Amino acid sequence: MAQSTGRHFLQIPGPTNVPDRVLRAMAAPTIDHRGPDFAALTTELLKGLKPVFGAAGPVVVYPASGTGAWEAALVNTLSPGELVLGFETGHFATLWREMAEKLGLSVDFVPGDWRHGADPGVLAERLRADPEHRIKAVCVVHNETSTGVTSRIPELRAAIDETGHPALLLVDTISSLGSIDYRHDEWGVDVTVAGSQKGLMLPPGLSFNAVSEKALRTSENARLPRSFWDWGPILAANRQGAFPYTPATNLLYGLGEALRMLEEEGLPQVFARHARHAEATRAAVRGWGLEVLCADEREHSGSLTAVLLPEEHDADKVREVILDRFDMSLGAGLGKLRGRIFRIGHLGHFNDLTLAGTLAGVQMGLELTGVPIDRGGLNAALTVLGAP
Amino acid sequence: MAQSTGRHFLQIPGPTNVPDRVLRAMAAPTIDHRGPDFAALTTELLKGLKPVFGAAGPVVVYPASGTGAWEAALVNTLSPGELVLGFETGHFATLWREMAEKLGLSVDFVPGDWRHGADPGVLAERLRADPEHRIKAVCVVHNETSTGVTSRIPELRAAIDETGHPALLLVDTISSLGSIDYRHDEWGVDVTVAGSQKGLMLPPGLSFNAVSEKALRTSENARLPRSFWDWGPILAANRQGAFPYTPATNLLYGLGEALRMLEEEGLPQVFARHARHAEATRAAVRGWGLEVLCADEREHSGSLTAVLLPEEHDADKVREVILDRFDMSLGAGLGKLRGRIFRIGHLGHFNDLTLAGTLAGVQMGLELTGVPIDRGGLNAALTVLGAP
Repeated sequence: MAQSTGRHFLQIPGPTNVPDRVLRAMAAPTIDHRGPDFAALTTELLKGLKPVFGAAGPVVVYPASGTGAWEAALVNTLSPGELVLGFETGHFATLWREMAEKLGLSVDFVPGDWRHGADPGVLAERLRADPEHRIKAVCVVHNETSTGVTSRIPELRAAIDETGHPALLLVDTISSLGSIDYRHDEWGVDVTVAGSQKGLMLPPGLSFNAVSEKALRTSENARLPRSFWDWGPILAANRQGAFPYTPATNLLYGLGEALRMLEEEGLPQVFARHARHAEATRAAVRGWGLEVLCADEREHSGSLTAVLLPEEHDADKVREVILDRFDMSLGAGLGKLRGRIFRIGHLGHFNDLTLAGTLAGVQMGLELTGVPIDRGGLNAALTVLGAP
Repeated sequence: MAQSTGRHFLQIPGPTNVPDRVLRAMAAPTIDHRGPDFAALTTELLKGLKPVFGAAGPVVVYPASGTGAWEAALVNTLSPGELVLGFETGHFATLWREMAEKLGLSVDFVPGDWRHGADPGVLAERLRADPEHRIKAVCVVHNETSTGVTSRIPELRAAIDETGHPALLLVDTISSLGSIDYRHDEWGVDVTVAGSQKGLMLPPGLSFNAVSEKALRTSENARLPRSFWDWGPILAANRQGAFPYTPATNLLYGLGEALRMLEEEGLPQVFARHARHAEATRAAVRGWGLEVLCADEREHSGSLTAVLLPEEHDADKVREVILDRFDMSLGAGLGKLRGRIFRIGHLGHFNDLTLAGTLAGVQMGLELTGVPIDRGGLNAALTVLGAP
C-alpha cells in the first residue's frame, strides 16, 4: 500500500473503533484501586452495567478478555464430568465447546451448517430425551461472530421452559451486547458472557458475567477448580467498591464513558441503528448479486454481515486488496469458512457515512479482484440509509 | 437528528479532522516554555517546518489563528499609505483586502467573478502600468477556501519577473499548505501565510509566516506599527529555542507529531493524494449533473470542491439536511455565494473511504432535498478511487 492517510476503517466485527471520548477517558492518570475515588467509580460502573445486560442482579467484571469470561461461566457453575449441551453455530461455539472439554466437562454438541442459529426445536428434543437431567447447562452463542447469525434466545428459553428441564442457560453475547437487543433477566439467562471490545466500544481487556440467582446458588456447589474467575470473592469485594485483585483501572475509566454514551443514545436506538446498518449492508450484498451467509431471515445479525463468495474466488484475496488499497480491515472467514467468506463489521461506534465508505471499499475491492458484481450494490444500500 | 453515533464527518474545508496521534501528542503535560526541553522542541519544529514550506529561510510561528498571520505579513513589510495589489478571487481575498485598508494601506483590488484565480496577464499589466513602483506588494490567496480555486503562483511569479517590478509577493496558503504543491523559495514568494488547522491537521491556534531574505530586509524599514507580530524579536528568541511571549505549547506538541506524519507520507504523496481525491469529487459532482464552481481546469483545488446548485435550490438547506441526517458538516457558501454553493473539504487527515462516505452523504442529501441528480455520481467517483 501507499502511505495510509486519514482514519483506518476498522470494519472487522471487533475489536471495534474506540470513540475519542473513551480514549480520552482512558488517558486519565491511574489511581489507587484501593482508594475512595476508585470505590465510587466501581460502584457507579457496576450499577451502570446492569441496564446494558438487562440484569437486576450482579455483573462480574474481569480484567481479562472474553475467552476468560467463557471460562468463568463454566467453572462457576459446573462440576467435573458434567454434561453440557452446545450448538455448532460456528467457529466460536466450537471453541467454547473445546474449552469445556479441556476443563473436564462432557459436551453434547448439536451439529450445524454455520448458516443457522441454535434450533429451539432440537433443543427441546434433546432436553425431553434427558429425563434424568444429566444436561446441566445449555451453552449458546447469541451472535456468532464467525458467521453473522444471531440465535433466537427467547425461543430457546421457551423450549427449555416447555420441557421443564432445570439446565442452566449460558449465553455468549460477546458480539451482541450493546448492539443487538438482549435481556438477561427477561429471557431467563443464567450466565451472560460479554467482552469490552465490541458493542461496548472499548479496547479488549475487560470481560463480564451477568449472573442469575439460580446460577449464583448453583455456584455454591459447583466443583470445577476456580480461583481467579471465582464470582464469590469478586462479588464480596465489589460490595465495598473494590476488586480482589488489581483491576484494569484505565479500561474502567473508558467503560464509564462508554456507558454514558450508550445511555445518551438509548439502548432501543442503539439496537435500531445496528439493525438498520445491517439491513443496508444486506441490500448492498444482494445488490452486488452476492449471497449473505446467514440463511434464515429471522437470524440476521445486527452487528456483522458475512458475505459468501462464488466458489472460484478467494475471499482472503479480496480482503487483502481492500486493506492494501483502501486501508480497511474486514473479518476473515474462520475455520471451515476460510477463504469462502469475508465479514463486514458494522457495530459499535458507527454511522451511516462510515458504512457507506465501508461498502464503497468492498465494492471497489470486489471489482479489483475480478469478482463479478453489479455496481448497483452500493446505491441499494444508500436507498436504505437515505430513505426520506 | 436522532442521536449521532460513530464519527462525525467534519468535511468543511477546515478546521480539518485532527489525527488521534496529534491529539494524543497534545495531551502531554504543558512544560516550562523557558526550559531546555522546550528549547529543543522549538529548534526541532522550526527546522521541521522548512521543508513543508519549501523554505530554506526562517518560518515564524504565531500563537494565533491564520488571520493574525495575514496581519503579520502586512505589518512587517509595509508602511502607512503604501499601495498593495490584490485580486478578488473570493471571500478571503476580500477580507485580506479589508484588513489591509484598516491597517492604513491602499489596495488596488482587481475584480473577479469568484470562479477564477488571480490572472497572471492582468498582474503583468498592472505592474507594467506602474513604472514608479508605487505597488509595494502583491497579495494572492493561493487556494481560495471560499471557492475551491487555486491560483497559479509560478505563473504569477513569472509575470512579476517579466516586468522587472520589485513588489513583494505575499501569498496566503492557509488552505493549501500541506495539501497542494507549494514552494516558497522556488516560486520566489516573499511572505507565505499559513495556519495550523487545515493541511497541517492541527486544531486552530497556530499560524505562520515563511519569510524571504528580501522580505526580511524590507521589514527593517517598514513603518506600519507592529509589536506582537514583529518578526525581529521572534526570530531573535527562536535562535535560543524560545519565543518572546508564551507560546501555545500543547499545539506545538501536536505540530511535531503532524510534521512527522507529513514526513512519513512524503509531501509529493500528500499532494498526489489530495489531487486524486479532488478529481474523484469532481467526477461525482459531474456525475450528479451538477457544476463545479471553479471554471478553469488549471485551477481546481486539491483541498476542497465547491458545488454550484441550480438557481432554485438552497445550498444551505442541503447542508442542513446532511448535518441533521448524516452528521456531516459541509462548508457554506460565503459572501455573495451564500445559499448558491456548498463546499466539500477533502483535505488533511483523509482517505478514499472517508471520501466515499462523504460523497454518499452528499448524494443522499441532494436527493432528500429534491435537487434533481443522477445517482451515478457516487459510482463515478469510485471509478476514480477504485481504478486498478
